[in-house]
Amino acid sequence: MNPEHLAAVHRRYQQVPSYQYYGITVLELTEGSAQVTMAWQSWFANSNGFMHGGVLATLIDSVIGIAARTVTSRITTTVECKVNFIRPVREQDLRANAEIMHKGNSLLVGRGDVFDSQGRLIATGTATYAMLQEDDWEKYQMPAQEKD
Amino acid sequence: MNPEHLAAVHRRYQQVPSYQYYGITVLELTEGSAQVTMAWQSWFANSNGFMHGGVLATLIDSVIGIAARTVTSRITTTVECKVNFIRPVREQDLRANAEIMHKGNSLLVGRGDVFDSQGRLIATGTATYAMLQEDDWEKYQMPAQEKD
Amino acid sequence: MNPEHLAAVHRRYQQVPSYQYYGITVLELTEGSAQVTMAWQSWFANSNGFMHGGVLATLIDSVIGIAARTVTSRITTTVECKVNFIRPVREQDLRANAEIMHKGNSLLVGRGDVFDSQGRLIATGTATYAMLQEDDWEKYQMPAQEKD
Amino acid sequence: MNPEHLAAVHRRYQQVPSYQYYGITVLELTEGSAQVTMAWQSWFANSNGFMHGGVLATLIDSVIGIAARTVTSRITTTVECKVNFIRPVREQDLRANAEIMHKGNSLLVGRGDVFDSQGRLIATGTATYAMLQEDDWEKYQMPAQEKD
Repeated sequence: MNPEHLAAVHRRYQQVPSYQYYGITVLELTEGSAQVTMAWQSWFANSNGFMHGGVLATLIDSVIGIAARTVTSRITTTVECKVNFIRPVREQDLRANAEIMHKGNSLLVGRGDVFDSQGRLIATGTATYAMLQEDDWEKYQMPAQEKD
Repeated sequence: MNPEHLAAVHRRYQQVPSYQYYGITVLELTEGSAQVTMAWQSWFANSNGFMHGGVLATLIDSVIGIAARTVTSRITTTVECKVNFIRPVREQDLRANAEIMHKGNSLLVGRGDVFDSQGRLIATGTATYAMLQEDDWEKYQMPAQEKD
Repeated sequence: MNPEHLAAVHRRYQQVPSYQYYGITVLELTEGSAQVTMAWQSWFANSNGFMHGGVLATLIDSVIGIAARTVTSRITTTVECKVNFIRPVREQDLRANAEIMHKGNSLLVGRGDVFDSQGRLIATGTATYAMLQEDDWEKYQMPAQEKD
Repeated sequence: MNPEHLAAVHRRYQQVPSYQYYGITVLELTEGSAQVTMAWQSWFANSNGFMHGGVLATLIDSVIGIAARTVTSRITTTVECKVNFIRPVREQDLRANAEIMHKGNSLLVGRGDVFDSQGRLIATGTATYAMLQEDDWEKYQMPAQEKD
């Protein structure tokens, strides 16, 4: 991947609604890896006052998904994601790293780790992504067309 | 669990910031199961315009976590969660069901399924929760106290 | 799927070396589901004397994989598998059920549950399978050819 | 952990029935990590002739479980394990590494990777282990006592 591709990925993720909402900002991209931050939002709190596990899962799926974009121009969609929650966290900005472990013909596998400001591991996860072909992408549009 | 406990769980989840933000509303609770809806929010969109996988993971962690509360009064925290994303979805309200498959001495395991308005399976997942003792809960407060 | 296909799947799995070794026997197949038994082998014991988690994972991957064959004639390969171990078990024959939850264009998702002789849940899991095309299958043969 | 503890773990795993059967041999142990090999057995073959996913899951659960023993003297039991299968493999000895990512009060989380003889990634996984107390261990004996 050339630097232009990485720059385009970086620009793209600055405009995605869900990333803006979650306060996810791309810090660094290389071919096969990504590093992001997520700024604490008050609505991250679950019923115990800690960050909702789903928010941490979102951060992990996001950082691995962004890393996936550094190795392919095809549309990617998450097949599955698994997260281990290591330490509860509250009212803190977090940092997350991801690396792509394997890129096959149609599937990508990556892992991601989340750290707090003191560098302690907060959560770790793995995810599989499908890389779609153009014709697959057309099919993916169908559900929305059916809606109308 | 008596009806008062289920009613208390129901009330509690109407006030949690993250559930309000995600538009998650409890529909029905029985001992060991929960059913919720999640109303589409524009910020759910990922870079492809579909619902972010992390939002679906949040819905699954939420519905299983709510079902967990129907079988224990102890504080629960997610140990791990794994989600399979079956069909992409966009601009739709979703429904999710969960059941607790096992309650041990300190761990709970549950599964959850997400459906679209036409009853098609959108995502499915499993999660493990730790049930904390009072003294554990005290320890969980520490990170925030350290912050001050 | 016609009854001949189910009968062929049944026959095939009676001859697979790994299934014979693990004592896995197909009890029942329908389109999208499978039920098998696994007979205790002394070498299943882990360092604590209980059945090794990997053996339970093998049983779950097997029963879901067999169920997968009831819905496709294509070669399938496991993409990922996740198992929750609910109760330790030793020196017991087990029963496992699986159902295919979704069959897409190239991926299948299924879930499986393992029970002891008293009907208690021992383990539960989900798995994703890739359905290969003929040309993919040719590629899969390559590693062995490289070996020679 | 002192060298005696590591040596005791090493000896113990040379005598476990399941490890002998799978041809799993410990190569190296440090505090928090393990490296093992697994020698190809003809019964590893699944219905396609490739190594059964369950055997790879067993290898990953084993190597992470062995690494877990380097950081605790308590009995450990697998809570959950998730494996991504990266490349199919046949008739090959494999090598696996694991590291413990976190040791809490009652739970351990580790990750493990499997490589072929050419150093290519074959599978990767994560697992959670519960560290039992003596009284928990007594309870774990009960199922076998019930059997008699």
